[in-house]
Amino acid sequence: MFVLGGSASNGLDIPISELLGATRAQLVTTSFPDGEIKVRVPEEVGGDIVVVQSTYQPQERHLFELLLISDHLRHRGYEVTAVVPYLGYARQDKSFIPGEAVSIHTVLNMMRCAGIKKLVTVNPHKEDSLRHFQGEVAIVNAVAALANKVKDMVRDPFVLAPDAGGLELARKAAELLGCEYANIDKKRDSEGKVSIVGTHGSGFGGKDVVIFDDIISTGGTIELAARFAYGMGARSVCAAGVHLVMAGGAKERLKNANITTLFGTNTVPCSDAQIVDISPEIAACLR
Amino acid sequence: MFVLGGSASNGLDIPISELLGATRAQLVTTSFPDGEIKVRVPEEVGGDIVVVQSTYQPQERHLFELLLISDHLRHRGYEVTAVVPYLGYARQDKSFIPGEAVSIHTVLNMMRCAGIKKLVTVNPHKEDSLRHFQGEVAIVNAVAALANKVKDMVRDPFVLAPDAGGLELARKAAELLGCEYANIDKKRDSEGKVSIVGTHGSGFGGKDVVIFDDIISTGGTIELAARFAYGMGARSVCAAGVHLVMAGGAKERLKNANITTLFGTNTVPCSDAQIVDISPEIAACLR
Repeated sequence: MFVLGGSASNGLDIPISELLGATRAQLVTTSFPDGEIKVRVPEEVGGDIVVVQSTYQPQERHLFELLLISDHLRHRGYEVTAVVPYLGYARQDKSFIPGEAVSIHTVLNMMRCAGIKKLVTVNPHKEDSLRHFQGEVAIVNAVAALANKVKDMVRDPFVLAPDAGGLELARKAAELLGCEYANIDKKRDSEGKVSIVGTHGSGFGGKDVVIFDDIISTGGTIELAARFAYGMGARSVCAAGVHLVMAGGAKERLKNANITTLFGTNTVPCSDAQIVDISPEIAACLR
Repeated sequence: MFVLGGSASNGLDIPISELLGATRAQLVTTSFPDGEIKVRVPEEVGGDIVVVQSTYQPQERHLFELLLISDHLRHRGYEVTAVVPYLGYARQDKSFIPGEAVSIHTVLNMMRCAGIKKLVTVNPHKEDSLRHFQGEVAIVNAVAALANKVKDMVRDPFVLAPDAGGLELARKAAELLGCEYANIDKKRDSEGKVSIVGTHGSGFGGKDVVIFDDIISTGGTIELAARFAYGMGARSVCAAGVHLVMAGGAKERLKNANITTLFGTNTVPCSDAQIVDISPEIAACLR
């Protein structure tokens, strides 16, 4: 088995190849002066091939690099397994307004056309959206790894899901931490402004609240939840996200909301956070 | 017929729809906070659909937007005609070193998978590379439009191709301008450094030399040719390129080489150049 890491593998190709006892082949990825990606796959690569490439920002560029590598190997006669730790463009999984393009459909269609026969990813925004992939899918759930890290560092946890959609993740995390959990109830006014109406679940006064979410993007959701938790008497509030996307101003927003610690995984590069290596769980899907 | 312009149409959807008497439909293209593209195609769009989207820098983002629009329309039951005035990723049209991914193959494969049934483009780097597209192809040659513009502004022209590969374009331009032409002969030393060994063609002392090329990227090729032409006694040197890609420092480079005027088409946005509108030639391929 060969493991290839693209420029957005975030270093995960190294532990994955080691855990599998596979050969890590060195891709040569450069850019032309006009920015176009040039990639070379060593000639000895063949047989079972795993390509590791996350699709964080710039998402289209990282996706295209993956398609370029896979499609090239398809021409050489091989269909590959793609490990895409963070699967970008997965949140637009339906037309919220008629006529909206459903980006996850296009991403999955392009991947299949490029010769990706199996897709391995970590906590996609909605698992159900991956049924559109015309190949095999394996989904890694990072919540246990993340909860273990939180357990080491948080004294008296209480898990909070920032909205009703995150309840399942919170329930699982709370079970692993042996603590209680709740979710926040939000409402959206006619102008789209979100406010909190309360929680479903028992009180968390005096507790160390851990807000669990799949993706932390702008941090706006976490900020709102943290202010609410402090308002309800939380002793401390930290945040745990599988994918620390951290778009425009997210770090500042979390700091202003007095988030004491940020936990995440290495599906996306992020500094100033407690990072859990998710490669063992990924490698388990490749055996 | 409906004409849709993507965010990299460079305004070409407007004259194209007018020339065809087609309805121009307004795409709603926005970005999520993490940079992901969101696009909405009005519900009334159907039947014969033309999507206009160039793929200049950032190439992958503009390409993905085109794929998103086309693939969405494929789900609605329509295969589209894509007008891609500048086709990025076309220069890597073979493996120069074994193992190199051939990006134009991947781009064409993705386009077909996204439901593009016909591709219209302007002077692709090598026409032959488009035979890999599993649909219909129409190629616009911008040289006549470009030569007409040059004719209006250059007194005593002499057409120069910056290398042997550009000879056909130069020959055509010279024919239209009613002037002589030549190509530069270059050699590449063991370190990849390019130098000029002479020209094939008659002298151009005292003439207004026009360097013709398909793509002006870094401007390095044009700079070298211009210095050579001035050295051989040219009265003035200007440059004409179909696609003014103008990557890192190109403007400065052309200025330093005393290029008096830069001519180009509107396949790529470029300021400080004499721009020819190529939409009539494109519209002719859509009738």
